[in-house]
Amino acid sequence: MSGEAPILFYTAPTPNGHKVSVYLEELKLAYGLQYDVVKINISENTQKEPWFIKLNPNGRIPTITDRARNNFNVFESAAILLYLNQHYDKENKFGFDRDTQPDDYSEMIQWIFFAHGGVGPMQGQANHFNKYAPEVIPYAKKRYTEETKRLYGVLEIRLQDRDWLAGPGRGKYSLADFNVIAWIRFHKIAGIESLDEWPHLKAWVAAAEARPGFQAGIQVP
Amino acid sequence: MSGEAPILFYTAPTPNGHKVSVYLEELKLAYGLQYDVVKINISENTQKEPWFIKLNPNGRIPTITDRARNNFNVFESAAILLYLNQHYDKENKFGFDRDTQPDDYSEMIQWIFFAHGGVGPMQGQANHFNKYAPEVIPYAKKRYTEETKRLYGVLEIRLQDRDWLAGPGRGKYSLADFNVIAWIRFHKIAGIESLDEWPHLKAWVAAAEARPGFQAGIQVP
Repeated sequence: MSGEAPILFYTAPTPNGHKVSVYLEELKLAYGLQYDVVKINISENTQKEPWFIKLNPNGRIPTITDRARNNFNVFESAAILLYLNQHYDKENKFGFDRDTQPDDYSEMIQWIFFAHGGVGPMQGQANHFNKYAPEVIPYAKKRYTEETKRLYGVLEIRLQDRDWLAGPGRGKYSLADFNVIAWIRFHKIAGIESLDEWPHLKAWVAAAEARPGFQAGIQVP
Repeated sequence: MSGEAPILFYTAPTPNGHKVSVYLEELKLAYGLQYDVVKINISENTQKEPWFIKLNPNGRIPTITDRARNNFNVFESAAILLYLNQHYDKENKFGFDRDTQPDDYSEMIQWIFFAHGGVGPMQGQANHFNKYAPEVIPYAKKRYTEETKRLYGVLEIRLQDRDWLAGPGRGKYSLADFNVIAWIRFHKIAGIESLDEWPHLKAWVAAAEARPGFQAGIQVP
C-alpha cells in the first residue's frame, strides 16, 4: 500500500480504545487496511482540549478521522466499530449483512448495546470506586462490582451453548465479541479477582485472546 | 387493519420504555403500524421471572416480540429502535438510509451510543443516589448529577446551530432525538431542577414534546 493510511485513530490504552484497535488489527490482517495512531494522554486531559473537542464533542477516546472519506469523524467506540464494519469490512468477515442476515445483525447489535449501556459504564463505575475515588464508599463499591458480576452472568448464560455472542449455530466471532471482551479483560481493576465463576465466559475470552489480530490490537497504542 | 398486531411490546413507564413507545406511536401515525402492550410490573420484578428471561436474558424492559417475523425477540432499547427502523420505517421518516446517506446514518448512530453509554447510565445512577439509595452518599450524588449536567452540555453545544441531533443542515427529527429526550424529560429525579442552563437543549426537548406521536408515546403504558 502506498500513500497516507485511510484511518487516523486517536486512542489510549483503555478498554474502549482496545475495542477499536482490535478491530483495526483484524481488518489489517484480513484486508490490509492501514491506519495511523495518535496517542492521547488522558492523564493530562488532552482529550478535553479545543482541537480534540472539534473531533469529538464529548472529549473522549477513541475517535477516528477517515481521510479516505472526506475526513469524516466518528466518536463513541461502538459507533466506530459499526462504521468500520460498513466501510472497511465489505465481506463481513467480522459482522453480518444487515439486508440478507437481518436477525444475526440485530443480535449483534443487541449485544453491542448490552455492553455499551451495561458492562462498560457499570464496570467503569466499579473501577472508579475500587481504585480511583478519593474516599472509600463500601455501598458504591459493592453496588458496581455486584452489577458487573450480574452482567457477566448474563453473558455466561448466552455462551452456555455457543462460542460467540451472535450468529447462527455456535456463532461467529464478530464486533459483538471484542466490543465487550476488551472490557472483561480488565476485570481485576473492578474488584473481580478471577473469571472462574463463569467458565463459558472465561473460555470465550481466552479464545478471542488467542487470535493474532486481538493480540496485536491490545498492544495499541 | 385486521388480525393480530405485528409487534408485542413489553414495557413500563420509564425513560427506556418511552424511547420505544414514542417510536411505535410515530410509526402508527406515519404508517399505521399496530402493536400490543404488555405492562411489566418492575416493582414486583416481573422482568426477572423465567418466562421473561427467555425473551430478554438481561431481565429488563423494554423488549419486543415481532409476531410478523417469526416471533423474533429484540432487547435493549436502542437495538429495538434500530430494528423497528430497518423493518417498519421503510421510507426512513425517522432515520437515514445506511447505504445512500452513510454519514447522516453514522451521526445518528454516534448520538445514540453517546446517550446509551452516557446519559442513560449516568442519569440512572444520579436517580439512584438522589432518590432510591438507602443511605445518603454526597460524593456519589454529586458525581452523577454533575456528569449528567456535563452530558447535557455536550448536547447543548451540538444543538447551538441545529434543531435535531443528526441530519444535514439543521437536522431531521430521528431516533437519535427521542432516544435521549426520553431520558432528559426525567431530569428532576436526577437532581436537576430545570433545563434553563441549556436553552438550545430545552427548546429541542419542547419541540419533540409538541409532536402528537411523542405525546402519545409517553402515555404508554
